[in-house]
Amino acid sequence: MIETPYLLFLGDAPDQLAAKVAQGIKDWRPENAVGQYRMPGCKADVGLTDMTLDEGLKAGAKTLVIGVANRGGQISAAWREVLVDALGRGYDLASGLHNLLRDQPDLLAAAQVNGRTLHDVRVPTVAYPIANGVKRSGKRVLAVGTDCSVGKMYTALALDAAMQERGMKSSFRATGQTGILITGAGVPLDAVIADFMAGAIEYLTPDNDDNHWDIIEGQGSLFHVSYSGVTLALIHGGQPDALILCHEPTRTHMRGLPGYKLPSLEAVRDLSLQLAQVANPACKVVGVSINTQNLGDAEARACCAEIEARLGLPTVDPFRHGGGRLAEALAAL
Amino acid sequence: MIETPYLLFLGDAPDQLAAKVAQGIKDWRPENAVGQYRMPGCKADVGLTDMTLDEGLKAGAKTLVIGVANRGGQISAAWREVLVDALGRGYDLASGLHNLLRDQPDLLAAAQVNGRTLHDVRVPTVAYPIANGVKRSGKRVLAVGTDCSVGKMYTALALDAAMQERGMKSSFRATGQTGILITGAGVPLDAVIADFMAGAIEYLTPDNDDNHWDIIEGQGSLFHVSYSGVTLALIHGGQPDALILCHEPTRTHMRGLPGYKLPSLEAVRDLSLQLAQVANPACKVVGVSINTQNLGDAEARACCAEIEARLGLPTVDPFRHGGGRLAEALAAL
Repeated sequence: MIETPYLLFLGDAPDQLAAKVAQGIKDWRPENAVGQYRMPGCKADVGLTDMTLDEGLKAGAKTLVIGVANRGGQISAAWREVLVDALGRGYDLASGLHNLLRDQPDLLAAAQVNGRTLHDVRVPTVAYPIANGVKRSGKRVLAVGTDCSVGKMYTALALDAAMQERGMKSSFRATGQTGILITGAGVPLDAVIADFMAGAIEYLTPDNDDNHWDIIEGQGSLFHVSYSGVTLALIHGGQPDALILCHEPTRTHMRGLPGYKLPSLEAVRDLSLQLAQVANPACKVVGVSINTQNLGDAEARACCAEIEARLGLPTVDPFRHGGGRLAEALAAL
Repeated sequence: MIETPYLLFLGDAPDQLAAKVAQGIKDWRPENAVGQYRMPGCKADVGLTDMTLDEGLKAGAKTLVIGVANRGGQISAAWREVLVDALGRGYDLASGLHNLLRDQPDLLAAAQVNGRTLHDVRVPTVAYPIANGVKRSGKRVLAVGTDCSVGKMYTALALDAAMQERGMKSSFRATGQTGILITGAGVPLDAVIADFMAGAIEYLTPDNDDNHWDIIEGQGSLFHVSYSGVTLALIHGGQPDALILCHEPTRTHMRGLPGYKLPSLEAVRDLSLQLAQVANPACKVVGVSINTQNLGDAEARACCAEIEARLGLPTVDPFRHGGGRLAEALAAL
């Protein structure tokens, strides 16, 4: 667990896109962030109050979260100065960067001297069990995609928000770095050792109240040959009661695999359901989430309507139109 | 790569079954073993010449392979004495034990002093790439099972032997500890980090001659919820041209999962083929391998005949009856 609330470190972000982790926290867990810390030359702004490290502390911040990608894969001298200063003032640090905080001697020393914690959320810190396949109480929904990076995390977060609005009991369960930083906890599934993948998801989604929903962030795709094993571990470890299909309609080939076409939503529906029913025979596909970021308003509505008619399932872009219809589909189960 | 030939360390094995790694080497790569080393009280015998460490060296041995499971998960003082002695005489050590050789201070020190190598084959030593899904030259066959531990490794080894007898070009590609010790190389797939599983299998089975077959050792099962992700990574990383279905007909539930029934061979055939065709649309299911160790001769033949009639595929126990018909099915592709 990463201690909240956060101060969000935007550093010297070259553009808004570089700060997408900070933006995700601001969009989905604004209560987790007291403000943003920007260095000279920072071109990003997630719309929070600009604060110094001291102002952040006074506002209650416990952890300085690196909310920005680093340039060229290096943690610069300018960043180090701020990060060491933050540790000295009593902040923990949290990061999803490829370069681990713990591998930086100056940060490690400052953390040790000051008794602070460095959270590298790419690295598992738990010895996960091997999955035992035993049925757990409570309900679970998993986002499965035609491809990687089609909006599975945003779908899960939007669904969580819509369920909370309706007074339903739900918990977003992060399975990737960004999701972990947004919510402060989760499993970095792509960094887990093969034998323990499904067990890590069982650990992440334990027994719960009968009317509680774990909303499990999906990863990869059964049809993405680089990462399909991770996806199947989610399906079998998660024992989902419900699946939501996720798709980006303008994608021309599988991400990073120019020789591979995307599967149809029908193929993803049938294959995911067959595999999910191995662990949970009652599993159903309840809705479709379309990432319409590359479409205009009218196109987006037409695309969702066409898919809804074709598959006979509620179909929305939950980021654009809200996740209400998906939440209602779960409530109706 | 582990240097061959080996001297096989049987230690103080309490029974024959404890020496199954040594037995596998003797059965499948007898040319890799010059003899066996037994301690007082050893109850196992794989039928090789008993040798002292010095006799092993004179016969050409380079590596002392721990061919036996250790009792109670500890490397005993009696074992340590022999292992340290072996390092001093110039042997490398190789082991698939849960306790790593490198974590034993006395063995690590002796290896360093003598310039020898400790091979812990449970631990990956290569930074595997992320799979790129690019079609490779040469042909590949993968064993897929209804469950774990149904004979996928023995099927692959028997197929390799049958293909070699027929003058076909083939390489057994180990994906587990025992297979790695038998052949001296491979990928310990269950210990690979999730994101790199499929890439590890691409690495293991690179471009090759058009008429060369990689025979890939299978792991787990698509229907085993603890390990299914590992199985799918094998299917997508391996890009198999051919699949062989493996089954143990007396199994009453999935291994380690009392609540889970075994799938039918038809279900494994259809699901494996659908997933394999994502990476290789030309993939075909070519045969069935039945582990008949718990059946009498007549029962074993009747079981294979029934399945052969039902599935319309050559069906044999390759360990009992030889792998010839499976090799011929591949040759006919």
